[in-house]
Amino acid sequence: MIARTPEPPYYAVIFTSLRSETELDYAATAERMLELARDQPGFLGVESARGSDGLGITVSYWASEEAIRAWRVQAEHREAQRRGREEWYRAFRTRVAYVGRDYGKS
Amino acid sequence: MIARTPEPPYYAVIFTSLRSETELDYAATAERMLELARDQPGFLGVESARGSDGLGITVSYWASEEAIRAWRVQAEHREAQRRGREEWYRAFRTRVAYVGRDYGKS
Repeated sequence: MIARTPEPPYYAVIFTSLRSETELDYAATAERMLELARDQPGFLGVESARGSDGLGITVSYWASEEAIRAWRVQAEHREAQRRGREEWYRAFRTRVAYVGRDYGKS
Repeated sequence: MIARTPEPPYYAVIFTSLRSETELDYAATAERMLELARDQPGFLGVESARGSDGLGITVSYWASEEAIRAWRVQAEHREAQRRGREEWYRAFRTRVAYVGRDYGKS
């Protein structure tokens, strides 16, 4: 559940969202996007949580900016992003970040 | 709930955790740390979610690496970090990242 990322550096895409009321195709698409992401070159892992107040945070980790770009323009993912913006999310922010260091307990 | 961060660049600290069974002082300390963080120089915002599977993700945003360092060594926060490592978290990872760009819908 905590992503087993390699030693930094690597990249993170922090996606924070508030859902709309629209459920149509949302859960199935979210699951399908996870499946697709895992098959993308440079995918390192993902962490996701949605709290009882409705705020969702999904952080995906990537080996390079090129890998992030390739995922962003993947055809099926593009269509999901379009529907996300128009149907499933009331508000969201996507932040692309360079992870320089990490530490923890496992 | 979605942090109203300024135009990038800025920094993010991604803290992902799994809780232990220990509740003692946890909720009060978490709330107190939020209060303290908001008063730190360079604090830009925070987003937090814990899902039903127990995974928690808290992302705090900062104006500079110096601001992150000052917060990390703040005395009361240091003690909370020690207790987090020893008592409250079964596992965690902290990732320090540079946010180069963002986009979204608000």
